[in-house]
Amino acid sequence: MKVSVIGATGYTGVELVRLLNEHPNIELSLLTSNSFAENKIDEIYPHLKEEVEIICHKLDIEQIVTNSEVVFTALPHGVSMDIVPKLVNRGVKVIDLSGDYRYQTLATYEEYYQKHASPQLLSQGVYGLPELNRKKIKDSNLVANPGCYPTVSLLALAPLLKTGLIDPQSIIIDAKSGATGAGRKLSLGTHFCEVNNNFKAYKVGQHRHRSEIEEKLSIWSKQEVKLNFTPHLLPVKRGILATIYADLTDDIAELELFKQYQNHYQEELFVRVREDNMPELKYVAGSNYCDISLKVTDGNKVIIVATIDNLIKGSAGQAVQNLNLLAGWEEDLGLKKVGLYL
Amino acid sequence: MKVSVIGATGYTGVELVRLLNEHPNIELSLLTSNSFAENKIDEIYPHLKEEVEIICHKLDIEQIVTNSEVVFTALPHGVSMDIVPKLVNRGVKVIDLSGDYRYQTLATYEEYYQKHASPQLLSQGVYGLPELNRKKIKDSNLVANPGCYPTVSLLALAPLLKTGLIDPQSIIIDAKSGATGAGRKLSLGTHFCEVNNNFKAYKVGQHRHRSEIEEKLSIWSKQEVKLNFTPHLLPVKRGILATIYADLTDDIAELELFKQYQNHYQEELFVRVREDNMPELKYVAGSNYCDISLKVTDGNKVIIVATIDNLIKGSAGQAVQNLNLLAGWEEDLGLKKVGLYL
Amino acid sequence: MKVSVIGATGYTGVELVRLLNEHPNIELSLLTSNSFAENKIDEIYPHLKEEVEIICHKLDIEQIVTNSEVVFTALPHGVSMDIVPKLVNRGVKVIDLSGDYRYQTLATYEEYYQKHASPQLLSQGVYGLPELNRKKIKDSNLVANPGCYPTVSLLALAPLLKTGLIDPQSIIIDAKSGATGAGRKLSLGTHFCEVNNNFKAYKVGQHRHRSEIEEKLSIWSKQEVKLNFTPHLLPVKRGILATIYADLTDDIAELELFKQYQNHYQEELFVRVREDNMPELKYVAGSNYCDISLKVTDGNKVIIVATIDNLIKGSAGQAVQNLNLLAGWEEDLGLKKVGLYL
Amino acid sequence: MKVSVIGATGYTGVELVRLLNEHPNIELSLLTSNSFAENKIDEIYPHLKEEVEIICHKLDIEQIVTNSEVVFTALPHGVSMDIVPKLVNRGVKVIDLSGDYRYQTLATYEEYYQKHASPQLLSQGVYGLPELNRKKIKDSNLVANPGCYPTVSLLALAPLLKTGLIDPQSIIIDAKSGATGAGRKLSLGTHFCEVNNNFKAYKVGQHRHRSEIEEKLSIWSKQEVKLNFTPHLLPVKRGILATIYADLTDDIAELELFKQYQNHYQEELFVRVREDNMPELKYVAGSNYCDISLKVTDGNKVIIVATIDNLIKGSAGQAVQNLNLLAGWEEDLGLKKVGLYL
Repeated sequence: MKVSVIGATGYTGVELVRLLNEHPNIELSLLTSNSFAENKIDEIYPHLKEEVEIICHKLDIEQIVTNSEVVFTALPHGVSMDIVPKLVNRGVKVIDLSGDYRYQTLATYEEYYQKHASPQLLSQGVYGLPELNRKKIKDSNLVANPGCYPTVSLLALAPLLKTGLIDPQSIIIDAKSGATGAGRKLSLGTHFCEVNNNFKAYKVGQHRHRSEIEEKLSIWSKQEVKLNFTPHLLPVKRGILATIYADLTDDIAELELFKQYQNHYQEELFVRVREDNMPELKYVAGSNYCDISLKVTDGNKVIIVATIDNLIKGSAGQAVQNLNLLAGWEEDLGLKKVGLYL
Repeated sequence: MKVSVIGATGYTGVELVRLLNEHPNIELSLLTSNSFAENKIDEIYPHLKEEVEIICHKLDIEQIVTNSEVVFTALPHGVSMDIVPKLVNRGVKVIDLSGDYRYQTLATYEEYYQKHASPQLLSQGVYGLPELNRKKIKDSNLVANPGCYPTVSLLALAPLLKTGLIDPQSIIIDAKSGATGAGRKLSLGTHFCEVNNNFKAYKVGQHRHRSEIEEKLSIWSKQEVKLNFTPHLLPVKRGILATIYADLTDDIAELELFKQYQNHYQEELFVRVREDNMPELKYVAGSNYCDISLKVTDGNKVIIVATIDNLIKGSAGQAVQNLNLLAGWEEDLGLKKVGLYL
Repeated sequence: MKVSVIGATGYTGVELVRLLNEHPNIELSLLTSNSFAENKIDEIYPHLKEEVEIICHKLDIEQIVTNSEVVFTALPHGVSMDIVPKLVNRGVKVIDLSGDYRYQTLATYEEYYQKHASPQLLSQGVYGLPELNRKKIKDSNLVANPGCYPTVSLLALAPLLKTGLIDPQSIIIDAKSGATGAGRKLSLGTHFCEVNNNFKAYKVGQHRHRSEIEEKLSIWSKQEVKLNFTPHLLPVKRGILATIYADLTDDIAELELFKQYQNHYQEELFVRVREDNMPELKYVAGSNYCDISLKVTDGNKVIIVATIDNLIKGSAGQAVQNLNLLAGWEEDLGLKKVGLYL
Repeated sequence: MKVSVIGATGYTGVELVRLLNEHPNIELSLLTSNSFAENKIDEIYPHLKEEVEIICHKLDIEQIVTNSEVVFTALPHGVSMDIVPKLVNRGVKVIDLSGDYRYQTLATYEEYYQKHASPQLLSQGVYGLPELNRKKIKDSNLVANPGCYPTVSLLALAPLLKTGLIDPQSIIIDAKSGATGAGRKLSLGTHFCEVNNNFKAYKVGQHRHRSEIEEKLSIWSKQEVKLNFTPHLLPVKRGILATIYADLTDDIAELELFKQYQNHYQEELFVRVREDNMPELKYVAGSNYCDISLKVTDGNKVIIVATIDNLIKGSAGQAVQNLNLLAGWEEDLGLKKVGLYL
């Protein structure tokens, strides 16, 4: 299948290129890049030498439409919404990695992001979290790939929220992410000397991903959920670990909770419930896995710890998983890899 | 003043040596080391070459007593309690950096640590958190230097707890520490290849420091406090950042809360309340500061973010601060240093 | 094909397990571990959960022989030489990752390592550097997988040495390695707090790999080569970068030298000659590539810069490459992966 | 003494501010910053809160001249040479941290940097390497603070070069630096995700510091010295380690060479000759020390390993050392600190 990547030279874009290159059913058709047009991708990312040496071009919708069955748009939000309609309207299936089509409620998007340029497409966008939305994804022509923090948070919370075992209004998500989450764009906040050996909270209570998580949890629990969400920046490249606190609605044993997770995810290829050890970044970095464990504490609280690789399950890998669903292939085709650990 | 360090070659011990060496009123008298007896300290820690070249000896109580006005015991808990009484009973003042004399309630210590060998001294031990216990420290002959997590947590919580502005039963402490907190002892958990580029929660809900924090908060709030405490291991050497969540008891503006902190800490030399930016590890690493900021969120919760250098304000620096109090010197003598930032 | 790994829980062993698990023609038969016998491998290395859950056993030669066509021995030198003969003599092909069968000259081995327990097998051992020894490897029953430093050094030097373009007596290898090279064994030298943000030279002029490099260069240049070799420890997990200095024997342009490399390696799947940019660790980390570039300087010296991932091309990946040769498969089967870059 | 810092918000500038703030004889008078004019320095570098809260201003020569006895110029080369003459001509002593006044030969400067705007001042500039140029510095009104790589290289080479024990034409300097050496300016090359867990050589054979080292070595050895110099970028913030190779001119024992270093540096406060262990970054990071050790190898080569903290002995610390000389104070006033090690 011929697929193209729009925005191939950002960190998400190049991770897509890497994964699609290893995918047995994919032919990488076109790569576009605004900043590095007319450069070979391996000049920008020299690890690709002798593996992917495609020239990046400025975006040409006509060319893309003609040469792609599915297109990945790895663009900043706000840019995506100008381009995606032009593709979808021409009958090309799109997997969009920005925030532009993740919301059901236009007002929420516009409150947290900006005026939407193609609101009519919002309802067409299917939220691309396969474990919780598989059926709809299969038939979609526009998949809105979830944010990295929402991916890990929603997978961690769904089994207990959907069964009413936790109070939806009691949720606190204390999340820690590697620096690739901030992308390749230059800023003082990602200067090596500012990040290395440092750790900080940022956008405390104000990160956009909070609204994305809240919308989905609200739908599941049929009430307007408000939660506390504190992202932090880790001095690592890849990986997110979320430590989540919630009140149990009843006096339930740890083992019962684990059972809920096992039931919920036993058929899932990319969710691992850990009963014997807590997740660590190095168990998932480099893989499409989401690892989850938990602990019940005094006072009927549960602490859920969950991890993903933000560039894989948190973006490019999940996008490929969605592609597999769209195409009717095995869901883990091209994604069967454990992390590096070391 | 002649002071000695028992256990000088652990990470806490050598940090004490570094700080005491720069202290204008101190003469480093004796250094003891079990593992490296008869070695010069600069052979074990070569950065000390031409600065501190004292030979470490096996512990000889007689020698210590004769040659020291104050003694720092930087020993593992359980070891300290065998040695401290021999010093205190001989009239030497002791600043103990282990957990052995931090508790008022013997039962709590014995539940979280082990059988106590010198319980009669427990009541003599004064909890060495100067900002909250200054007066008692000055007159003490046995200062129990607080744990690193308790230091940052208690400084962050005291102003709101003591004024009844937060519900003591609602506290969640999500803390992240650098690897020096685990000491120099070899273990797989501190192998470079297991820590670098990794991040994990550990001892979820079960870390001993939880009981130390709970005891102090219980005293202040005159009720038995239970809290949630999750420590995490950061791939950095120094520093702790704690993100603390609590329910406000009333509808209070952020500014009012900041005022409480300003009132509480305005005379303090080592606590900085940050209204304009959130604390980061690099603002305190290498210094004796504790930095604190906060955010009020929807639903009447406050998120407090606080940082310390675990080896300085979280152990050796606070111990020197306690020494200054004991000796009647300026509290910041030998400690007036900003961090390195870079 | 059924293969087994003896010593599966060291860093090299588990990297073998990871690569063999992704290899399409391999069935992982038996894993042995001295330290973790009767544990499932994914209990020791939890990233393997749901991927490889084989139980590790104590070594049982009989069982191994019965159940394996090829065996990888990932053992410390000195241990390998006791076990390898028992396998080879029973007709099992062995790829040994220790230093025990890399030398042609017994005396050199015994000078740099120890008394050899099975010297009669030395001559049977084929040096497993495919790019320079492919033919012999194919027919071998005992492949001695090269050391990590020798792999990158020999690949970098061969084209110029074999064509007489550099003076063999002028070589200086200044090499920098990640900490996985030191293995999983606990030592102060690999404690996170001792390695992070640090950098050092070690075993200056005395590292064993020097003798391995010298032996091969001596054979190629038909004279006894002596060189200078300084290894350094980088605060990273994976990767070696070697900066190599040598005197050119003639006045040769940079372009001519590049041509030599291109000629030498144009058919090679795992060597990339970089004319446009210098190698960096992140271009090869996670892959089986060796990247090489060079610069001619005033005074007729050439500076060659070369990189590998020490765990892949420097050990487990090269071992799989050797397996592919032994088995008559495509040389890059199961190894077609670019690095992660991020 | 009132001193000012021009360019106070770069990494070198803020390190000067930190060190000068701890200096007992200094009053920080004016700080200038182009990028952050009218900001308090502790808003830009929050670790300075409650320690240094001076407002940075745009450069106003008149104000500087009126309010400073000595001025540090921490500006990019090319900018310095426009400003320094205006200060020197008004009778203010200047310690310049750029490359603009380090060269004796105008042509060399202009070959490696750019057209010089104030060449007449070149001869006034005294090379500020105290250990090798102390007398001239004391009487100077313009001190050209050496580059970081030249500082460590020249201190490592002087004792053997000046005594004729090494061949000046045989020198190879393989140097590795932390990322603070590249400054705070944004560039892809210092993006966290590009540097972390990476290592690379850069500007191979072409780094400007090579010419600075060559000029000084040429003067000392009374012949035009050409050397090989390869800088590398370490994934650490602070510190340079140089591994230097040279041919011995005679058959000399290691011990004899150490004696030369001891003789040369026995009175020096900031050079430590290590006979028992090799220098490591963590022994000097945070201090003004230069550590040196060596090894003699087969074939009459010496390998010298030397380290400094590039921000201290390699720039701001050495600048303060020069100030102490200018002012006639103890040379280590305000600089008596060991590194942090951890």
